[in-house]
Amino acid sequence: MTPQRVTLITLGVADLDRAKAFYAALGWVPTCEMNGEVVFYQVNGMALGLFGRAALAKDQGRPDAALGTGSMTLAQNFSTEADVDQAYTSATAAGATPLKMPERVFWGGYSGYYADPDGHVWELAYNPFWPLNDDGSLTLPTD
Amino acid sequence: MTPQRVTLITLGVADLDRAKAFYAALGWVPTCEMNGEVVFYQVNGMALGLFGRAALAKDQGRPDAALGTGSMTLAQNFSTEADVDQAYTSATAAGATPLKMPERVFWGGYSGYYADPDGHVWELAYNPFWPLNDDGSLTLPTD
Repeated sequence: MTPQRVTLITLGVADLDRAKAFYAALGWVPTCEMNGEVVFYQVNGMALGLFGRAALAKDQGRPDAALGTGSMTLAQNFSTEADVDQAYTSATAAGATPLKMPERVFWGGYSGYYADPDGHVWELAYNPFWPLNDDGSLTLPTD
Repeated sequence: MTPQRVTLITLGVADLDRAKAFYAALGWVPTCEMNGEVVFYQVNGMALGLFGRAALAKDQGRPDAALGTGSMTLAQNFSTEADVDQAYTSATAAGATPLKMPERVFWGGYSGYYADPDGHVWELAYNPFWPLNDDGSLTLPTD
């Protein structure tokens, strides 16, 4: 079982500055930015991130070309590493294609990727810096 | 200006029954289904829909092949048609590629599509059957 939840949408972008400028032109205000590599926006009960395509491809362990135009991932955040493992096991048992087994990652969390039957890429993650709300929604911490 | 909001994620799928079976296997419970053509799930403060790839391509006025693997759209819902028009104008002014000008559509609402600089497809829509919450989130009506 995995929760009926989406807590982060990641858009893989070719040029982060260009993408930031576009969303700024739409009136969007970044909530936090990390090392000039990723930018997060608080949206209703969840977050949307902009992340370099090459970095996103590397993060998923896939060639950049496989991401395609409009490359995107959906994420489900959890409260523990064990919850990530349990959900990953459930997903692959349900027929998901494993892309990257959950493992501790450089940003201090724990993350794995799978693809659904149509190739939609889901990340399952535990992020100790992003506690979930009681209702399963995500409110980004502010700097 | 457009709101910092995501209210619907649409996954274009090759086989709706297969996709439904996959999400059912994950423990997801559909909130509503329309004519066996589209299925919506209530998630935290927003909705996620499964929709046939061919129908999604037609809805966007694009060839199916252009959707790519992992085809997906993000949607922003609004409270009036005028709000949709205003946001569409703002988006194209900001550099978005127009895909389909907002127009009244068969399901009783009003909808347009644009692509951001990386090809991510956004739908801007007014759906009279889906009033937004005061906080901009979407709670799907139940049957």
